[in-house]
Order: sequence, then structure tokens, then C-alpha cells
Amino acid sequence: MAEHNVTVESTLRALLEAKKYSALKDVLITMNGADIAAVFEEFEETRIPLLFRLLPKELAAETFVEMNPDLQELLIKGFSDSELREVVDELYVDDAVDLVEEMPANVVKRILAQADPQMRREINEILRYPENSAGSIMTTEYISLRPNMTVDEALSRIRRTAVDKETIYTCYVTENRKLLGVLTLKDLLLVKSDEARISDIMDKNVIAVHTSDDREDIAQLLSKYNFLALPVLDSDDRMVGIITFDDAMDVIEEETTEDIEKMAAILPSDKEYLRSNALDLYKKRIPWLLLLMVSATFTGMIISRFENALAAQVVLTSFIPMLMDTGGNSGSQASVTVIRSLSLGELEFSDLVSVIWKEIQTAVLCGVTLATACFLKIVLVDRLLLGNDEVTILVAAVVCATMALTVLVAKVIGCTLPMIANRLGFDPAVMSSPFITTIVDALSLLVYFTIASALLFR
Amino acid sequence: MAEHNVTVESTLRALLEAKKYSALKDVLITMNGADIAAVFEEFEETRIPLLFRLLPKELAAETFVEMNPDLQELLIKGFSDSELREVVDELYVDDAVDLVEEMPANVVKRILAQADPQMRREINEILRYPENSAGSIMTTEYISLRPNMTVDEALSRIRRTAVDKETIYTCYVTENRKLLGVLTLKDLLLVKSDEARISDIMDKNVIAVHTSDDREDIAQLLSKYNFLALPVLDSDDRMVGIITFDDAMDVIEEETTEDIEKMAAILPSDKEYLRSNALDLYKKRIPWLLLLMVSATFTGMIISRFENALAAQVVLTSFIPMLMDTGGNSGSQASVTVIRSLSLGELEFSDLVSVIWKEIQTAVLCGVTLATACFLKIVLVDRLLLGNDEVTILVAAVVCATMALTVLVAKVIGCTLPMIANRLGFDPAVMSSPFITTIVDALSLLVYFTIASALLFR
Repeated sequence: MAEHNVTVESTLRALLEAKKYSALKDVLITMNGADIAAVFEEFEETRIPLLFRLLPKELAAETFVEMNPDLQELLIKGFSDSELREVVDELYVDDAVDLVEEMPANVVKRILAQADPQMRREINEILRYPENSAGSIMTTEYISLRPNMTVDEALSRIRRTAVDKETIYTCYVTENRKLLGVLTLKDLLLVKSDEARISDIMDKNVIAVHTSDDREDIAQLLSKYNFLALPVLDSDDRMVGIITFDDAMDVIEEETTEDIEKMAAILPSDKEYLRSNALDLYKKRIPWLLLLMVSATFTGMIISRFENALAAQVVLTSFIPMLMDTGGNSGSQASVTVIRSLSLGELEFSDLVSVIWKEIQTAVLCGVTLATACFLKIVLVDRLLLGNDEVTILVAAVVCATMALTVLVAKVIGCTLPMIANRLGFDPAVMSSPFITTIVDALSLLVYFTIASALLFR
Repeated sequence: MAEHNVTVESTLRALLEAKKYSALKDVLITMNGADIAAVFEEFEETRIPLLFRLLPKELAAETFVEMNPDLQELLIKGFSDSELREVVDELYVDDAVDLVEEMPANVVKRILAQADPQMRREINEILRYPENSAGSIMTTEYISLRPNMTVDEALSRIRRTAVDKETIYTCYVTENRKLLGVLTLKDLLLVKSDEARISDIMDKNVIAVHTSDDREDIAQLLSKYNFLALPVLDSDDRMVGIITFDDAMDVIEEETTEDIEKMAAILPSDKEYLRSNALDLYKKRIPWLLLLMVSATFTGMIISRFENALAAQVVLTSFIPMLMDTGGNSGSQASVTVIRSLSLGELEFSDLVSVIWKEIQTAVLCGVTLATACFLKIVLVDRLLLGNDEVTILVAAVVCATMALTVLVAKVIGCTLPMIANRLGFDPAVMSSPFITTIVDALSLLVYFTIASALLFR
């Protein structure tokens, strides 16, 4: 896509330089809001208000929604009140909420002042829902039909109100704000008789969610059922909004990024990498680095305890990195697999025993293979090729036994900790590679020195 | 969701035991295909064909699509030819293609024999596209309109052909299979005059993709534009199919799982964790474990080279785990952040210099903090609290200097390697934690012993 934007950007730039505003507008209206926003971000900030004013109302709002918050703020600050009102008028409520959440207080005040009273009320209502709840990402603009309407009446209601609705393809049948059924526009169009009643053709088995539900669960639900939208009910089971597939896709993307960051010992934030400065990155990364550094000193203490033994057999030291890394990698493989399965809803706590058993079997297979490979490598490369006589067969045996045991311990801990964390209501992603590596490091060295003491230092 | 299924499952089980088939059917038809499939998987295999036959035709197909391949195969083997034809008839082409790809050859032969000639042709056509291409996930069932139709004609065409179409909400205007424009059902419903021509109201600026495009790019494109569907063109720019948002969501989920697996040194596969046996897991995990184990021997060789120095100052050994782990974690943080940004399309190779500069600044901040904390910890805990006299101030200085330098090296390597891999056409996810940890381990020990040699062993 990037190459594409570059070409358009230079065209727009040339037209702008030549002050050919009408041609500029003609090019812009062939484009999509998301693309215009991407191109605008390449221009100098002083040019953007001029460019933005060339856009027709609806496209302007579409573009505005796709811009980054810094540019949005810049534009709003340059808007007159009536210009601001025009943009706010065109926004869907959920986009308006996103905007209000991102802007500083003085800008928010201006936005709310320009929103019409109903929108202001709806924005304030959605803002009251906790972060990451279904309520916080829903929109209130959906099509509602009455059960006693005919198909014909329903279609003309849809035609009349469609402009302001986020989707018209799924309609909700309500009475006194109670959700009675759901109906797609396809269902409506395929009904043979225009006089059929909505209550007779609607689907009464509605899958609905609640405002307090976790937004990630809702997103997975939408993805599982391939629905365009899901209805959202409040605590009294009255319908208050819908969540659409595009919001679900955004949520899944954000939550996955968070999971991946947690797995890499980073505190999650929703700021894009290129828009974060070094201080932002520092704040996200230093806490876990510090914590893990301090934890690693336990591993150091284990080495200290066996210092005398190590001084007598320094050759043992050279295998520490290999043992630690293999243990860490084995543990990560198990933990990451389990964390991903948990977040996709493929795994539950009740599967714990079968998961541990599966990991033990896998660990035995991996452990035997690795130990064998390691033994061959030590005998063939270290002893025969490099002629390192310190590496006796007994040393090789100690290393390989440690290797096999470490893999076993790593896999069992790697699969167990995330599932327990999940069960206790913590995010399993935190029980990931770095954390597990630290634990496995300490354990693998303990195993190493214990076996070494038994076999080598009798 | 799981709790929900458990209750339904016991109800269904009770009805089945009591042979109350009509009540059983009444319960099933209130449910969604995805949920029925999930419940069926809990039943004994011998019961499933009976349960499945209770479902009405359309719901049966919906349920069938959501089942796991083992159950699908079981059912097909039990179907008569006419039963099989009924199910295949109800499938969308893309689902039929998925089925054909999963089944063994003899089952595929039966499926194709029961598909009607046009579907058979379309299945074979889609099967010819390479894996992971847009062509392989598209469906051929879309609504096409002619430019000279009136709105009224278009609506009745949609009504007539809707049943077999994967979506009717986005319609494509074609002439001689050339794509001229796009039109949503909402556009059509909102047009004031029934006599308006399609060519006058369609959007001529169509965003289309090609059969050979990468399916992940297409999925990101759909998510970026919030489209319900994207048209797919062949190499002669003729329209051959569409890709819908639900396919895009599945692709994003699969590709993300693959990325996460690669980041954890696992060979990706599309088999769910609970459905994989120990041998499957072994095959996915052992190649990288072996490779990384062998690579770690380089780190061991560095230690061997400095064995004499270590024998003189065994206390240095106890800091090796802390230095290696902190280096590994710092590198992972950088690499994982960059890999995720690359896969979301937020980052390109042209950003390399600014990325490296950002990481250097972050590394300096993190390095100074960690070195300071480490110095304080060594002086306060190791020397004063534990009274370890071997840990001199000079040793602390060596450790802390190594720490700061390791973090710098780790962050720079961590951000650079994935971007270079991406540039060269490899998957950047492979340049992730385990791989970078191995490199950083070796480098950090090299730095450690070099500084130690300079300061301690003069």
C-alpha cells in the first residue's frame, strides 16, 4: 500500500504547489478516508487544514476518524465552531467517544459544546462504562423495529433512518427497549409477502452481550459466529447499543498486540511504535527488565553456592549457557502455545491434566533427542575434534542428564503457570517466556550442580 | 461460553437417552451452528450421525462447516450419496474448498462426485491458487449487477439470487467480467428514484485485490478500510470472486498464531493444541531447539577460552545468568515490538535509521537504570548484607559496565535483524526472542570477559 500512497502524495503535493485546488479536490474525492488520512500525515502540519477543508462533509468526517490524535487536535484547534459542528455531526457516536477519550480537556469541552444534545448524552453514557468493557466500544446507532410492523413498514423505516446508522444490515426488534428478536436485511428482502409481520419472521434466539462484558470476549464471539454485529444489553436487559465487526477486528488487533507485548516482558500501551519516543519505550520496558534482573540473582546465588565445586571443574561452566538457553526455549514453547490457546478460547482450566500429560510426553521426546544430540556433539566435537580432555564421558553424562531433566521441568512449568494464572483471574500472557526462563534457569542450574555433585565430586 | 454449552449438553444428553427426538430437534433449532458443533464434539462418536440427522438442511450445513475435520470425515463416511449431496449443496464454495483440502483423497472423490458441475468447476479453480494467496480464500458467490440496470431491476435481481450468495450487502457492477464499480445495498435502498441507473450511482473508485496477493495483506486491508468484502481480480483484471470480513478475521487469527509460534521458536502448523498429540508437538518444537542448542555451544566456547581467568575469579561466573537473561530480555523487547509493527504494516524498511536511533536512546536509558540498580544491589546485598568479600567494587564495575553495553547491543540487534529479514523477503517473526537471545548471549559474554580482562587481570 505504501508505494501507492507515495505516488498519490507526490501528485497531491504538485497540485498543492500549483494551487490547483479544484483538481486537488477531484483527486481527493476518488480516495478512501483511511488513505487520505495516511497521505495527510506525510504533509507539513501547516498544509493540513487547507487540504482538509477541500473535502466534502462526509469524506471529511471519514478522514478525520482515521487520523492520528495529534493531527486531530491540530485540526480541531484550527476549526471555527461551525466547522467543528459539521465534523462532529457526521461522526458515529462510537467514533466521537474515541475522539473525546484521546483529546485534552479543553478540546473535549469544545467538542461536547458542538455536539447536538442527544449525541452529547450518548457520548457521556458510553464514557461511563469501564475501559475494556463491551459498553465502552458499542455504538448507540442501530436500527430498531417494532414486532407488529409489516415488512413494508420496516423497509420504509430503514430507508428513513439509515443515514445515521452504523449498520442497517442487522436490525433489532424491540418493545419497551426489551430485545425480542433479530432480523437481517437479507431476511427482510427475501420475504415473499410485504404484509408479513416482523414478529413472525424475526429470529427469536438472539445472542446478546452485556455492557459489562469483556470487550475481548465479545470480539472473539463475533469472530466465532461470523456476525456483522452483536446487540448489547444493560444490567436490566434493555438494549442500549451494538458492537460491529469492524470494532471487533480493532479490539482483536489491540488485544493481540498487548498479549504479544506482555509475552516479551513489555508493559502494554496503545501507542504505535513509531509514535512513541524513547521515554515512552523506556517506561514500558524498564519495570520487567528490573524485576527479571533481580530475579536472576537467585540463579547467581545458586552458582555462588557451588563455587568451590566449579573452581575444581571449570569446564562445567562452559555448558551453563547451553543448558539455560535450551531450558528457556523449551519453557517458552510450552507457555506461548498454552497462552495463545487460552486467549483463543480453545483451552480451559479443566484441561490442565491432559495438557500436563501432553507436555510430559513431548518433553520426553524432546529431552531424549536433545540429550543424544548433545552427547554426540560433546564426544565428537569437544573431545575428538577439539581435543578437550577435560570433557570426560562422565561430564558429558552430567550435561546430558541435566539437559533431559531441564526440558521436562521447563515444559511442565511452562504449561502450568499460564493456566493457573488464568484460573486466578490474571492475564496468562504475563506468565510467559521471560518469567518462565528465569524460573527454569534457576532450576536447571540446581539440577546441574546436584547431578554433578553426585557423579563428579564423590 | 463453555458453562453455557455444558448445560445444553446435559439437556441434549437427557433427551437423547429418553429417545425424545422431537424435543431434541426443537432444542437444536434454537441454537447456532457453531454452538451445535461444539456440543456435538462432546458426544460419543456413535451418537453424532443420529444427532446430525435431526438438523434441518440449512442448519445442518452450518453445523457441518464448524465441526473439526475428524468429525466431518466420520459423518461423510456414514452419509448416503443423497445425504452427502444435500450437505454439499448447502455449502458456500469457499467452505467446500476448505473441506476438500482437509479430507483424504477417497472422501474428496465422493464429495466432488456429489457437487453439481458448476460448484465442482469452481472448487477446482480455487484449489489451483497457491496456499496463502487471496485466490485460495475467496468465494465465487457474489452479487454482480450490470451498469445499465435500474435500481428497481437491481433490487429484484438481488432478491432473486440472494439465497446462494455469501453476502448481498456489497454488490459489484461488471460488464464482460470487468469490474466497473461497487455499490452497497444501503446505497441502493437510499436512492430516491427507482429508475436511476446503476452506472450513475455506483462508486467507480473500487479497491480491488488480485488472486495472487498475499492473504494476510488482504485481511489487513479489509480491517483497515472496515469493508464487508473486497473484490478479487485475476491476472487479466477480470473479477473472479470476493473475500469477506469473516474470512479476513480467520486469516488474521491464523497468521497471528503463526507469528507468535515463530517468535517462540515453534514451527507453525494449523492444528489446534488440544487436537495435536505429543508427536505433532515434538515435530513442531524439536528443530529450533536443536538448532539453538548447537548455536549455544558458541557461547560455551567463549567461556572455555576464558577458563583460566574464570578459575582465578570464580565469582564472575555467578553473574553470567543475570547478564545473559537481561541481554536476552532487552533484545526480545526490541525484536517483538518491531516484528508486531511490521506485521501490522506500521513500519517499513525505510524507517530503519529512525528505529535504530529510537532503540539506542531507549537502550541508554534502560542500560543506565539497570547498571545503577545492579551496582547498588551488589554493594548493598552481596557485599554488606551477605558479606561476600570476593565481590569487590571493581567486580561490580565490570558487571555493571557489561550490563549497560549488553543492553545497547541487544536492543540494536533486536530491532535491526527483523527489519533486514523482512526486507530480504523472510518472515521477520523468525528473527525473534530465541534467535536473538542466542546471539546476544555470546556477545554479552565476550563483552564481559573483555572488560574483566582489561580491569581485573592486568
